[in-house]
Amino acid sequence: MRVILAAGTTETALIDGISAAGAAPELMAQTPSADIEILEYGRPTVSPVTPVSPTGCPTPAAVTRAVREVVDFDLTVVDAGLARPTGSPTVDLSVPAGADVREPTAVPDASAVFERAREFGASLPDDEVVVGETVPGGTTTALGVLTALGEPAGVSSSLPENPLERKEAVVETALEASDLAPAACEDDPLGAIGAVGDPVQATVAGIAAGALDSGTDVTLGGGTQMVAIAAALRHAGVEDPLSIATTSFVAEDPSADLEATCDRLDCDLTVTDPGFRGREHVSMQRYCAGEAKEGVGMGGVLSLVDDGEMAAVRDRFEAVCARLGIGADGVDLESAAGSGHGADADADATAGADGGP
Amino acid sequence: MRVILAAGTTETALIDGISAAGAAPELMAQTPSADIEILEYGRPTVSPVTPVSPTGCPTPAAVTRAVREVVDFDLTVVDAGLARPTGSPTVDLSVPAGADVREPTAVPDASAVFERAREFGASLPDDEVVVGETVPGGTTTALGVLTALGEPAGVSSSLPENPLERKEAVVETALEASDLAPAACEDDPLGAIGAVGDPVQATVAGIAAGALDSGTDVTLGGGTQMVAIAAALRHAGVEDPLSIATTSFVAEDPSADLEATCDRLDCDLTVTDPGFRGREHVSMQRYCAGEAKEGVGMGGVLSLVDDGEMAAVRDRFEAVCARLGIGADGVDLESAAGSGHGADADADATAGADGGP
Repeated sequence: MRVILAAGTTETALIDGISAAGAAPELMAQTPSADIEILEYGRPTVSPVTPVSPTGCPTPAAVTRAVREVVDFDLTVVDAGLARPTGSPTVDLSVPAGADVREPTAVPDASAVFERAREFGASLPDDEVVVGETVPGGTTTALGVLTALGEPAGVSSSLPENPLERKEAVVETALEASDLAPAACEDDPLGAIGAVGDPVQATVAGIAAGALDSGTDVTLGGGTQMVAIAAALRHAGVEDPLSIATTSFVAEDPSADLEATCDRLDCDLTVTDPGFRGREHVSMQRYCAGEAKEGVGMGGVLSLVDDGEMAAVRDRFEAVCARLGIGADGVDLESAAGSGHGADADADATAGADGGP
Repeated sequence: MRVILAAGTTETALIDGISAAGAAPELMAQTPSADIEILEYGRPTVSPVTPVSPTGCPTPAAVTRAVREVVDFDLTVVDAGLARPTGSPTVDLSVPAGADVREPTAVPDASAVFERAREFGASLPDDEVVVGETVPGGTTTALGVLTALGEPAGVSSSLPENPLERKEAVVETALEASDLAPAACEDDPLGAIGAVGDPVQATVAGIAAGALDSGTDVTLGGGTQMVAIAAALRHAGVEDPLSIATTSFVAEDPSADLEATCDRLDCDLTVTDPGFRGREHVSMQRYCAGEAKEGVGMGGVLSLVDDGEMAAVRDRFEAVCARLGIGADGVDLESAAGSGHGADADADATAGADGGP
């Protein structure tokens, strides 16, 4: 079993009110680079930021890393438009960072990115892959693509209160900037991604399409961002079986309405509950309160955990949190401040699959 | 335990008589890219070549991969000057491919490469790392650096008959082109690497120095190329404990004289015999005949194998060979031909640590 993680950025994350990035733009640009260091090394190494919210909610990369310390799977990270250096190894598919969706073009050469990713996906020798992502601002670009495709699906958020009206307003502006009406890209999913999406979508869709072409089973590991990618694949005429594996936190989010959407897109849906409810650790409590919810392949890798191993995953999660400066009772502010974060109480660094709020 | 592999190229490998690259230059340029795909995926994926000699001797990457299928260790590949695309993830330290040592400069900005690698090495959270390499032509650049440092050590070869006189003639020309006498760089190891070395040396030396600085134990996994790097570190004033872990095939090579050299450089030496002797598989026989010998971290990862596990490593090695088109009796020529190799009976693709013959 191989888990493939596409890590990238979009300047959409910098839009005021869309995410805390207006207050801490460096954090948003750095988060995917830090996330993949956490996956590879267990903590950020080269990256100057530690993606932990002031309330003590770490990036979902911490959960994915915890699973990795318990369950045996291969992990391959693809650079899907990183904006900052990383000490983590990545597959280079020459994917540029994404522009603000309110520009006429959000993903330059989306079709070329898709094709390179498709070749990479087709080259994989695995029988089965889980594809995840990390891209701050990604639920807004997901809403953009779903709207351009004419899909009625809602999107989730990494914040307890989903700023959905703000996202809808951004998407409306974005479609206008690209001279598109809602549903205008029904038959042109790469047009939708190019106009109002992000480079991670083009990369994940390409990897999935290539892997399916070559007979590899594909699970999209993530929440509503993966719904947008599944929709893009279906609108591209991909008829192979597709699965989405996400967390209970996304599945419980009424704005996502995941089950009905998966039915409509003919996607299997797997929901995994990591068993954080009722635990005393502040980070688990934050996830249960609706922060972060999903991302960095979290739901995908949780689906690989046997029932008997989930307690070990929670133990490892606490250990990863400790490395990130989070004790059972909260963030070690000294350590968090040293991470280039924590000083700004509004910053939301729990970027990931449903990472842009 | 983390194994770090630095993969790169030098145009030195293209010198006629130094390696078979004169007959198959693409093969030499491609081999490190294919090697790291074998480590990551078990076989080449994007790379159009399969590094297997016409006699049925696969790249040492096949052994390293076999160990990886038995022993649990983290593997991180660093791009130390790759010349061709790869489907494998790599850490990007902006290391350019190396020039022919007979040019005035063999490694542009060797000091800057060393510094970037040192920062990366210092960032690693591990207690212990093994650092390996793959660079065709690497024993010639090793001889170059050893000569420029004034070290009397000999170098090994990936061929049963070491073309040592040819290498010495190239090094003589290389020193002249850089206006250097033997031993001229006694106090300037990065000057030696820059003038007559390769980018993988600058990268490995930097990673090792940075890791040692931050309290990480370092084992250099390889043969006489690692001797050159150990010598460079000692000449740079690094006094920390250093170990070299190599294969019995290098240790038995009289041109290497490894034990005395390690004594002089105050390096611990670990030699591991994979137990290929007496086996019927053609690839194991080729290793016992002195082909390949070492490379792609082979000796380093073999030192991580418990005695009771070596039989499992040999089993996995046979399985990896089968994936590369080598049956127990020899190369499947059809498959090898399809790999972009095998048609040229003189081509020697078993590049690696002692990869340039």
